[in-house]
Amino acid sequence: MIVLGIDPGIGTTGTAAVQEAKGQLSLISSLGITTPAHLSSSQRLLTLFQSMVALIKKVKPDVAALETLFFNTNVTTAFSVGQARGVVMLSLAQANIPVVEYNPMQVKVALTGYGAAKKMQLNRMVAQILHLSKPLAPDDVADAAAIALTHCFSYKLKRLENISR
Amino acid sequence: MIVLGIDPGIGTTGTAAVQEAKGQLSLISSLGITTPAHLSSSQRLLTLFQSMVALIKKVKPDVAALETLFFNTNVTTAFSVGQARGVVMLSLAQANIPVVEYNPMQVKVALTGYGAAKKMQLNRMVAQILHLSKPLAPDDVADAAAIALTHCFSYKLKRLENISR
Repeated sequence: MIVLGIDPGIGTTGTAAVQEAKGQLSLISSLGITTPAHLSSSQRLLTLFQSMVALIKKVKPDVAALETLFFNTNVTTAFSVGQARGVVMLSLAQANIPVVEYNPMQVKVALTGYGAAKKMQLNRMVAQILHLSKPLAPDDVADAAAIALTHCFSYKLKRLENISR
Repeated sequence: MIVLGIDPGIGTTGTAAVQEAKGQLSLISSLGITTPAHLSSSQRLLTLFQSMVALIKKVKPDVAALETLFFNTNVTTAFSVGQARGVVMLSLAQANIPVVEYNPMQVKVALTGYGAAKKMQLNRMVAQILHLSKPLAPDDVADAAAIALTHCFSYKLKRLENISR
């Protein structure tokens, strides 16, 4: 199973593809998609969309994982992130890739067992799980990997549930 | 000049195309694009995108006009509207159609001369300007027409500015 984690943004969209094979997790792609600030919003969204289409073609994910909105986000940020997220979701829908969503608390608990974990703790845990020599950068890519891993863990738990029935 | 006004939303996106020819304004298309509530968010965004692509092909607008965010919107609404707006902007960028933006106050002042105008006053004014026998429905379509008209008026004023120089 290949899970594509995505942390959308108009400036930078973090992406990380995690493969789960025989219980082993590995990072098979990590990419920060940036869009030039001098372009209009609609041109930036077009750049993001084209990069997402190319990435999906290359990575061929079975499922995409996105984070739901932070409760403490302000309206302007929510609006801006929403626009980038809409374009990302469209690229996934066009390729028939299902989208799963987790809230920030679920991501923290899945990775650290601790809902109040700091971003740095989360990023270190991502690096440890994926056997990376150093934390992923930028933060958006590390966040994307954290979301992808959350789905891998959640999926594993669900499978175990079915076995025990 | 054909101006396509758009009021994006995941449930209903209002659209209205206004043509300005020899100083005369007329409504050449009005369409509420709805998406089935039982579909996933990404599938709804895909439906919206496909409808926008078809509409742009039919109406062939010279420019698209969108409203900026309401200050008093809540975070959840901003996020949801943002996703629909991102997809709408992408459809315009792909067709090389420039996007202009007006804030709600500018729309009210352009149409009624009065920044605190109520929605109903605005809709009545839209119907009067476009010589319609009754106000447009649903509200999203009327709002889209109001935004398109705001651009027509603003464009006219800019042209007059150039003449007086």
